[in-house]
Amino acid sequence: MERIVEFILELDKLKGVTRKNRPLGLDRYENSAEHSWQLAMLATSLLAYAAEPIDIDRVVAMLLVHDIGEIDTGDTSVYIEEGLADRKAAELAAVNRIFGKLPPAQAERLLGLWLEFEQGETAEARFAHAADRAMPVLLNLANQGQSWRECGISHARVVERVGPPIQAGCPALWDYLVPRLEHARQQGWFGA
Amino acid sequence: MERIVEFILELDKLKGVTRKNRPLGLDRYENSAEHSWQLAMLATSLLAYAAEPIDIDRVVAMLLVHDIGEIDTGDTSVYIEEGLADRKAAELAAVNRIFGKLPPAQAERLLGLWLEFEQGETAEARFAHAADRAMPVLLNLANQGQSWRECGISHARVVERVGPPIQAGCPALWDYLVPRLEHARQQGWFGA
Repeated sequence: MERIVEFILELDKLKGVTRKNRPLGLDRYENSAEHSWQLAMLATSLLAYAAEPIDIDRVVAMLLVHDIGEIDTGDTSVYIEEGLADRKAAELAAVNRIFGKLPPAQAERLLGLWLEFEQGETAEARFAHAADRAMPVLLNLANQGQSWRECGISHARVVERVGPPIQAGCPALWDYLVPRLEHARQQGWFGA
Repeated sequence: MERIVEFILELDKLKGVTRKNRPLGLDRYENSAEHSWQLAMLATSLLAYAAEPIDIDRVVAMLLVHDIGEIDTGDTSVYIEEGLADRKAAELAAVNRIFGKLPPAQAERLLGLWLEFEQGETAEARFAHAADRAMPVLLNLANQGQSWRECGISHARVVERVGPPIQAGCPALWDYLVPRLEHARQQGWFGA
């Protein structure tokens, strides 16, 4: 029990890891804990549009743990590709440290979920990635491109980076996004 | 798809609903979105200690939706019992409004989870309640009783309000908490 409590208090730190998006109407940046919650709800809501038959409970479990490594590494924009291998190694070390606080059976289960997300090779992982890539796009479309403008991200860069994973996991969502991204471009909601 | 997007953007408001606890080491109050994420992780971690055999995926799904009504009503301390029936009616109206943005099948599923939590009559709901009541206690024990002191909550009040549900859903967790709550009392970490 002490190990579990130590683990859950360690997780509290994810509430202090900030991302590039701002919650709608709030004057602060989103943190990775509330983001993980919203992703789980997005995936649940999108279930009928998954590209392949999936176990939604495993998708939710994956999304709840996928950002926990950021407790040690911080959040990195999907648009920064330099140093990716080093960052991934650091995140793996982080989740080994953090999940390692738990009794072995629980630690292995959570690490398995984290690795499944990272490897992206199952239908569940592909669907989880689609949700993860789509959520900041949905916020930006509702927020006049807030993080795209602040970070200097172009329309082409967004389409190139988030299009393939969203299309692979949830094609109907990508069909929904394409004209809205074009509209956002016309409105000048992108940077660069 | 538009209904789902409208729903998920509505959920963004839960990031702005503040609670009485502060995340450890942060100079702000916790919000109900990040709290929901942490509860799901607490329940997952405590699975081996559930009082009865449970479907942990349904517990997680319940915990992810259980606070969504607060988007309209705000968070209310578990220690305020006045007006409980009115608040519960307002929360039900809120989740009907918010889940009603979704296509009917998904709306019914989420409403079913929300009602199961509220009614507290299944093993899964009892375990979910144990996690929900225990999490602020764990934060307070790590935070010198921050919200107990700020809100003037006594040791007896905490034991009376959170003891029975934690014991019903996760007795080993209550056994763990009893001596720590007594220690906190000796330290003067309670109000009133």
